[in-house]
Amino acid sequence: MQIGKQSLQFDEAPYIIASASIVGKKESEGPLGNYFDVVGEDDKFGQDTWEEAESTLQKEAFQMAVGKAGLKKEDIRYLFSGDLLGQNIATSFGLMDYQVPLFGLYGACSTCGEALSLGAMCVAAGYADYVVSMTSSHFASAEKQFRFPLEYANQRPKSATWTVTGSGAYVLGKRKSKSRITGITTGKIVDYGIKDSMNMGAAMAPAASDVICQHLKDFDRQPDYYDKIITGDLGTIGQEILIDLAKQQGYDLSGIHADCGIEIYDGKRQGTGAGGSGCGCSAATLSAYYLKQVQEARLHKILFVPTGALLSTVSFNEGMTVPGIAHAVVIEHAS
Amino acid sequence: MQIGKQSLQFDEAPYIIASASIVGKKESEGPLGNYFDVVGEDDKFGQDTWEEAESTLQKEAFQMAVGKAGLKKEDIRYLFSGDLLGQNIATSFGLMDYQVPLFGLYGACSTCGEALSLGAMCVAAGYADYVVSMTSSHFASAEKQFRFPLEYANQRPKSATWTVTGSGAYVLGKRKSKSRITGITTGKIVDYGIKDSMNMGAAMAPAASDVICQHLKDFDRQPDYYDKIITGDLGTIGQEILIDLAKQQGYDLSGIHADCGIEIYDGKRQGTGAGGSGCGCSAATLSAYYLKQVQEARLHKILFVPTGALLSTVSFNEGMTVPGIAHAVVIEHAS
Repeated sequence: MQIGKQSLQFDEAPYIIASASIVGKKESEGPLGNYFDVVGEDDKFGQDTWEEAESTLQKEAFQMAVGKAGLKKEDIRYLFSGDLLGQNIATSFGLMDYQVPLFGLYGACSTCGEALSLGAMCVAAGYADYVVSMTSSHFASAEKQFRFPLEYANQRPKSATWTVTGSGAYVLGKRKSKSRITGITTGKIVDYGIKDSMNMGAAMAPAASDVICQHLKDFDRQPDYYDKIITGDLGTIGQEILIDLAKQQGYDLSGIHADCGIEIYDGKRQGTGAGGSGCGCSAATLSAYYLKQVQEARLHKILFVPTGALLSTVSFNEGMTVPGIAHAVVIEHAS
Repeated sequence: MQIGKQSLQFDEAPYIIASASIVGKKESEGPLGNYFDVVGEDDKFGQDTWEEAESTLQKEAFQMAVGKAGLKKEDIRYLFSGDLLGQNIATSFGLMDYQVPLFGLYGACSTCGEALSLGAMCVAAGYADYVVSMTSSHFASAEKQFRFPLEYANQRPKSATWTVTGSGAYVLGKRKSKSRITGITTGKIVDYGIKDSMNMGAAMAPAASDVICQHLKDFDRQPDYYDKIITGDLGTIGQEILIDLAKQQGYDLSGIHADCGIEIYDGKRQGTGAGGSGCGCSAATLSAYYLKQVQEARLHKILFVPTGALLSTVSFNEGMTVPGIAHAVVIEHAS
């Protein structure tokens, strides 16, 4: 069951029974716009504040995923969720009405990988029949938390990424479905000393490379074992660095790598800089786009690697670096 | 293995192989001062900022606990840790040098319960031989994050609690020791609509009562099954509310309840208001004071219930409530 230094392979791999995605207006106008389950007309989602809007994303994603699985909230034994905001307020206020026992997580934009890992571990161990793993982000609440309020209308360098307004939720359990989580590799914090909060791709790429290469070593696999290796939100600059770093470790990812942050927007047309980012980027894109392909056997095996930059304004203003972390999840077609 | 609605009982209960505590000056001057492993002379712990000081607490606690267990950092397969600060910066910067795969957690001051729960689940399932579960808080970094910088010298109402400067770390594994985690009950968010950030005991007591009563129902136990039921940081006001709420559910906790926040300071002499609080309060007090009594069979069975108030300045300033969460961990003497 324990594989190599940082990985697990599940004897009884849990199934992804259902999933749901919800995104904002800009995401609906991107290349994947037609794939998401629900699209908001107004990024406030009927709420008074951006934070409540983000909570609404989690609320809706949970309800849709549980409904698609044919379950009720009472059937869900544990919730694994987190978000980017200080003290996880999008999660707390979004999910508290459901009254499901909660493990609150923080892994920056790697949270979807962390939540799927812990959820899968929990189901595979027999601790729960059904769990929900999920996360969210919102462009406006993130800008307010990490950079400038939108009203300030600041300019952004081209290396900056655009926080996705969205949420993705996954019901995991032992009941058979068309996809399952067969293994995980849990990441360490990797710090290359990047201090530029407007270049998160560079901050996260070393952590992505570290966990992907460790995963391939632990399982004794080559990159082409997978149909795709899909990172969360490295963007165009982070992708280039990842491919370079992995090559130094002897792995050629160039033909096989994809990034949710690159796929979700048309950067040139939509002015989104280096790509999409935020916990919701990989969470919504996996559910809407890649997971469907796995379920339909258009992709057989993918390595899903949400990537997080452990950025905080407090540490940033004190001159600290922006370390990265990433968690890898093996998702396979099940027939 | 699944017990009742929210609980697990472990078939092979993981052992608490070793633990360590470190606290600041004020905690060393309190009633438990002599019990902690390490006491700082200066609450900056040799660092330039309060946040780095808190990171140092985690760094030291990890190293001591792993050392006491006779292990090296390479032996630790997973780290479960979190703290109160936005984006868990005390954890990230404190623990990244150890290069151990990390599950970042956020449960406010319930984090020690969350970390011990997930760590125990992980070991009991055979996913790891050794894990470390830990957390920290620091008075000055918490005041800066949640209330006013210390330099402002604001006054505090008597209902306010005093954030403990401290950290506690626990090495869990299958190797026999004198104490083990035999079961857990995972809490839900409970919101009674409290909006007073200077009365956290009132915000947390409903969640504590909820998880304790659910635990007793799930395991079909009465409070006196335990030698003590020990909450994290309810303080004197929260304790009164907890006992009232549990009585309404038919459970009399009055003779059996203790609170780390009440024990750690001499409120009258030390001017700490309703008691100690913060993730580090229960984490350091369990390690230094209660766990030793379990190991020496002076206490045979305790229910340890770290309590968290999901407070954020952003949600608070937007007029939102302060919801609570608590997680219960059964710790028993092993011979």
